[in-house]
Amino acid sequence: MDNFTFSNPTKIIFGSGTENLVGKEASAYGKNILLHYGGGSIKRTGLYDRVVKSLKDAGLSIIELPGVKPNPRLSLVREGIEICRKQNIDFVLAVGGGSSIDSAKAIAMGTLYDGDVWDIFIGKHTPTKALPVGTVLTIPAAGSEASTASVITNEDGWYKIGFNSEIIYPRFSILNPELAFTVPKYQAACGAADIMAHLMERYFTKTKNVELTDRMIEAVMKTIINNIPKVLKEPRNYDAWAEIMWGGTIAHNNLLNTGRTGDWGSHAIEHEISAIYDVPHGAGLAVVFPAWMKYVYKTDLERFCQFAARVWNVDQSFFSPEDTVIEGISRFESFLSSIGLPVTLKQLGVTSDRLEEMADKATGGDRYTIGEFVRLKKSDVLNILNLANK
Amino acid sequence: MDNFTFSNPTKIIFGSGTENLVGKEASAYGKNILLHYGGGSIKRTGLYDRVVKSLKDAGLSIIELPGVKPNPRLSLVREGIEICRKQNIDFVLAVGGGSSIDSAKAIAMGTLYDGDVWDIFIGKHTPTKALPVGTVLTIPAAGSEASTASVITNEDGWYKIGFNSEIIYPRFSILNPELAFTVPKYQAACGAADIMAHLMERYFTKTKNVELTDRMIEAVMKTIINNIPKVLKEPRNYDAWAEIMWGGTIAHNNLLNTGRTGDWGSHAIEHEISAIYDVPHGAGLAVVFPAWMKYVYKTDLERFCQFAARVWNVDQSFFSPEDTVIEGISRFESFLSSIGLPVTLKQLGVTSDRLEEMADKATGGDRYTIGEFVRLKKSDVLNILNLANK
Repeated sequence: MDNFTFSNPTKIIFGSGTENLVGKEASAYGKNILLHYGGGSIKRTGLYDRVVKSLKDAGLSIIELPGVKPNPRLSLVREGIEICRKQNIDFVLAVGGGSSIDSAKAIAMGTLYDGDVWDIFIGKHTPTKALPVGTVLTIPAAGSEASTASVITNEDGWYKIGFNSEIIYPRFSILNPELAFTVPKYQAACGAADIMAHLMERYFTKTKNVELTDRMIEAVMKTIINNIPKVLKEPRNYDAWAEIMWGGTIAHNNLLNTGRTGDWGSHAIEHEISAIYDVPHGAGLAVVFPAWMKYVYKTDLERFCQFAARVWNVDQSFFSPEDTVIEGISRFESFLSSIGLPVTLKQLGVTSDRLEEMADKATGGDRYTIGEFVRLKKSDVLNILNLANK
Repeated sequence: MDNFTFSNPTKIIFGSGTENLVGKEASAYGKNILLHYGGGSIKRTGLYDRVVKSLKDAGLSIIELPGVKPNPRLSLVREGIEICRKQNIDFVLAVGGGSSIDSAKAIAMGTLYDGDVWDIFIGKHTPTKALPVGTVLTIPAAGSEASTASVITNEDGWYKIGFNSEIIYPRFSILNPELAFTVPKYQAACGAADIMAHLMERYFTKTKNVELTDRMIEAVMKTIINNIPKVLKEPRNYDAWAEIMWGGTIAHNNLLNTGRTGDWGSHAIEHEISAIYDVPHGAGLAVVFPAWMKYVYKTDLERFCQFAARVWNVDQSFFSPEDTVIEGISRFESFLSSIGLPVTLKQLGVTSDRLEEMADKATGGDRYTIGEFVRLKKSDVLNILNLANK
């Protein structure tokens, strides 16, 4: 286990009806709220009305900025920053999924930085302050509700880049599993793939002696695997959504990477796919991760055996560990298919003509490698994309 | 899963050599430090010198209050409060195990309360503020380094009472597994029993649909079970101590009781034993918990089956769940014995003449019940003590 520092101050307010507490919670941080969300879905479900009522009941002023799209865009972030400055916004509230939250975090940092917010994402500026952010989560997936991360897409060149800092841990996040009842099935499945990916990026590590976090990651993975089929069958299954929602937060709140270095190669590859093709992040991950596994498993058969045996209940073949691993990866792929996700680039709608471009972008024109478990050069990324291109 | 609120702001600084960061961390909170610890062990190991050097290098003034004993005493807490008031202490640093930390937390609350600190423990006063507390942990056991709890023993009548509040979450806790290398074997085993008990108190719940936290608790239990024999064999096994130390913190930092109500009956019974006999808390728990299990398992065979199968790898007897449960409890008892712990009151040095007194005290003279999984009256407590009195 490596040395580490861990502190996650995000206050989680979990359960039925908790969105009605948002005004009380937000009022601890300011008077002028930027209410940031996507489109009409929160209006259709009545969530918008409940949030606005709660904020108004707490005496707060609201400025709205809707229009967040999946793979949230830099242009809207810039718009939000303008508004925050002009309207003296002192608290940014995201209502939605990871896209709204990531966008809100970027706005919160950008408002207090004199330069252009994109500087933060390309490493030209490291911010030390941000407006406080809160969230009302509507879909378990990105884990942004208790994470240090924000991922933004620059439409000018379609670059999708993530930034991490403790200054953007949300101050509070409201998690009501009921809000997920209306999530479309495909989106729910994509969310599960995203959660699984966050767990697997952490799980596949070169750090030795990480039994506790290994076992805890496995615990969350098994819970997601058990519960996502339930909500696909019964979208109003509160108990199953509750497991997925809390699991999705824990998957990405930095507890499960304490003392270990994750991989994040598959995320980097997927970012190139969804930046160009604008596919759901989770769907892209469902395609990339099994291909990545097939490409790298021989570098650490033991870890992949453990994954297969403990997570996928493969009856371990002690005399041929590779058989165990292959069966584990196969069960993972079958699981993804069974919940309606693509497992090939073709199913995802990605054609083979831009694979090299993506491999090139992912590795900065082969100037650097991606991934820690295995360091991938451009040629490795291309091989993985070709494996995914069945 | 029940609705819940969760936030644990304690900053964990984990790993080799991290005690040398204590001055830097403490200096964020004040200038005048109360350095609170037990006896000579931290001087013998050199830890005392390193801590003092780090504090002085950070320009901090130190007032010392040593003398904390296991089952920390109210009289020393009162002494600490006097010192804090007279010397304008603004930060309390505990160096040691759960006793030093619990004592520090009580001092931190008592200093800012005009009345007698014992009022807080007997429910006469609910504090809303406390001096900030930090810790340098020397033994994984109590979990107090990231918990809301403080347990104090009043020598006047030997009452041992716990109090919980978010105001006593330590601001930071320094966890260096190397500091546990010199823990005597019996104390290490008692620590493991304490950690297991924290996990089991949370695990045995009547709350339904708690798969995620069930699995995570099991993950920590298995890690403790796997690693404590290693450190008993090799006291300087850093990796095994690291698993135990981080596991011991997670066992009690309130993450694993999110959305569920724990039991805590066994803790209440054990408090009566250690208040009178001054035995290590963990040793008392090793005696009480198996007896409690034998007394209550029939009320929820399914949960006890899950415990036996998942934690103790019992090959489940599908046609006789009770056999599975009994085997699970038996393996738990064997585990405790194998690490050198008592499993009967006799082994613990407790005679049978005061069982009724303890049952009476635990239930306030049979005026209230203890435990949530099963509510125990005085007669139940006596039955459990008799079961432990083999």
